Amino acid sequence: MSASLDDLPIRDDLRGKTPYGAPQAPLPVALNVNENTHPVPEEVADDILDGIAHALRDINRYPDREFTALREGFADYLGHGLQPDQIWAANGSNEVLQHILQAFAGPGRTAFGFDPTYSMYPLLTSATGARYIGGMRGDDFSLTAADAAEQIDAAQPDVVFLCSPNNPTGTPLSLDVIEAVYDASHGIVIVDEAYGEFAPRDEPSALTLLHGRERLVVSRTMSKAFAFAGARVGYLAADPALIDALRLVRLPYHLSALTQAAAIAALRHAPVMLSMVDDIVAQRDRISATLSALGYTPYESWSNFVLFGGVDDPKATWQGLYDQGVLIRDVGLPHTLRVTAGSEQESTAFLEALASL
Amino acid sequence: MSASLDDLPIRDDLRGKTPYGAPQAPLPVALNVNENTHPVPEEVADDILDGIAHALRDINRYPDREFTALREGFADYLGHGLQPDQIWAANGSNEVLQHILQAFAGPGRTAFGFDPTYSMYPLLTSATGARYIGGMRGDDFSLTAADAAEQIDAAQPDVVFLCSPNNPTGTPLSLDVIEAVYDASHGIVIVDEAYGEFAPRDEPSALTLLHGRERLVVSRTMSKAFAFAGARVGYLAADPALIDALRLVRLPYHLSALTQAAAIAALRHAPVMLSMVDDIVAQRDRISATLSALGYTPYESWSNFVLFGGVDDPKATWQGLYDQGVLIRDVGLPHTLRVTAGSEQESTAFLEALASL
Repeated sequence: MSASLDDLPIRDDLRGKTPYGAPQAPLPVALNVNENTHPVPEEVADDILDGIAHALRDINRYPDREFTALREGFADYLGHGLQPDQIWAANGSNEVLQHILQAFAGPGRTAFGFDPTYSMYPLLTSATGARYIGGMRGDDFSLTAADAAEQIDAAQPDVVFLCSPNNPTGTPLSLDVIEAVYDASHGIVIVDEAYGEFAPRDEPSALTLLHGRERLVVSRTMSKAFAFAGARVGYLAADPALIDALRLVRLPYHLSALTQAAAIAALRHAPVMLSMVDDIVAQRDRISATLSALGYTPYESWSNFVLFGGVDDPKATWQGLYDQGVLIRDVGLPHTLRVTAGSEQESTAFLEALASL
Repeated sequence: MSASLDDLPIRDDLRGKTPYGAPQAPLPVALNVNENTHPVPEEVADDILDGIAHALRDINRYPDREFTALREGFADYLGHGLQPDQIWAANGSNEVLQHILQAFAGPGRTAFGFDPTYSMYPLLTSATGARYIGGMRGDDFSLTAADAAEQIDAAQPDVVFLCSPNNPTGTPLSLDVIEAVYDASHGIVIVDEAYGEFAPRDEPSALTLLHGRERLVVSRTMSKAFAFAGARVGYLAADPALIDALRLVRLPYHLSALTQAAAIAALRHAPVMLSMVDDIVAQRDRISATLSALGYTPYESWSNFVLFGGVDDPKATWQGLYDQGVLIRDVGLPHTLRVTAGSEQESTAFLEALASL
């Protein structure tokens, strides 16, 4: 077996490409992919294991294709009067977004994001055959309602991604921008609240805008606030008609019985799981304050990470931290680096390593 | 919220469609979707649970994107000298097939199956933007090398599906047909051995043909022989270069840590898991023999189900069985029905209910 990729009849648009993926390295302090660095508390893990033990009893049967109990769990968790028929879920929020693109974008259509934003948006878009259009943000990566609406009005995309707060910049997005984009658009508007739980508690979610907006979607993930990145559970809330559309494109039985059982159990412990969020937010704010004191320029963040500017040579700084056992992320924005807010110890390790450079 | 699907800007090719899905009904004897009706043995379930408990300890971290240990497990299980870099896996064999289509078919390309065959092939094909071409089989649903090669030569598809044994008919496929199709094709040739473990033990798998055929893929699933339908684990073996192509289209971290842990543990118990296969094969052959005695015409099956002809009114027979608590499948082939081989008791319940009609 000595074939190369070029010997195979792969699609022309894939030739020469390399797989997506953050560099993975087994360092003591891994603050590179915005994971929640707090393990799931033991009492929650025990309850998850009980749920999985129960699911294993009939694992020989296909899972509930409609993941009914899980949808009830998400509706309860999200509140705002949401009903289970307004909920969808899949193997990570990437698959949730893929389902939306398959139903509403795909070949001959377009999807739009305000760059810099989550790097998977263009990849998911082109993987489903649609064309990605990159819009622009202000100097501090913020968006105003008027500017955003103008860009959407000009591009008329079939799907709009609004990452709130934005990744990789942490930038908040106010509801008036979402309303303006929705009004300017004829397509599906996705508010990606993957990091929504890290925003100030008194700030309203885009969930408050769903009523009467049948083209609006609010997507979430259990990877961050629920410390569940390994379990791969993303979900969204939208109009029941939009959920019906996603049923047309999902693979049958796409959510395993194990995934459903694990997520249902974790949602029962939402208050315990979310108690870690406050600790992370405190570390995030400490990181930002210390970065400023060190002469860097952190951007405002409502997420569990901080993008900071003022880095003369990001590659050198990244390597310097790496050599001290601290892994962070160079997201490719000039003179910046991005660090995930970890535990107090991890955050300290990062800040001390940076200060020592 | 009172929108309908027609109010939304869904893709034109999806308008008016309804979701795939076998009818699900909570009947005492469910022999409709070719599940393995034998639960996973308790000692295996215990070991799976141990593996999952271990995985839960760092479920807050993203899973191993390359599912290294699981690929080693599949390579060991499949044998034939296969190496981990020749293995791929995903959430069910449907997702495995989707990855192949995304890499090698998609918009502007074609995929080919010999109908009647697995009903997901055309759905997966069109969902990825490619066009499905339906080929033909002989009267008994068999294929000859010359006929199959001629059809492939005429259609020149980018991807060929060869379901071996075929679903929903159970028909065996001999290796000379696979070789002839491969030689006649310039595209990817997938031999779908989802039911491969139910074939006679001394019959060679298409895995024996992989060496030197870089466009050949042999796909499998844990859903059937391993009684793992609820866990959603499909996999394949192919040239390492072809595996590289699939990395370009998969979603990052597509296989959860729970799925990886569960599958690794189950594979360690392959002999116990596969011991159920012999029981199922015995029931399949008993079902076929009894159907003949009852005046029906069962088709030869190397799978865990039997398609039988000679049914005057399939809808009425299906309903008659349903009313007695036995769920089987009308796959839409005239004057036929399909039944999964269950446990001895389930198979008896089906045969007695049928005899009573």
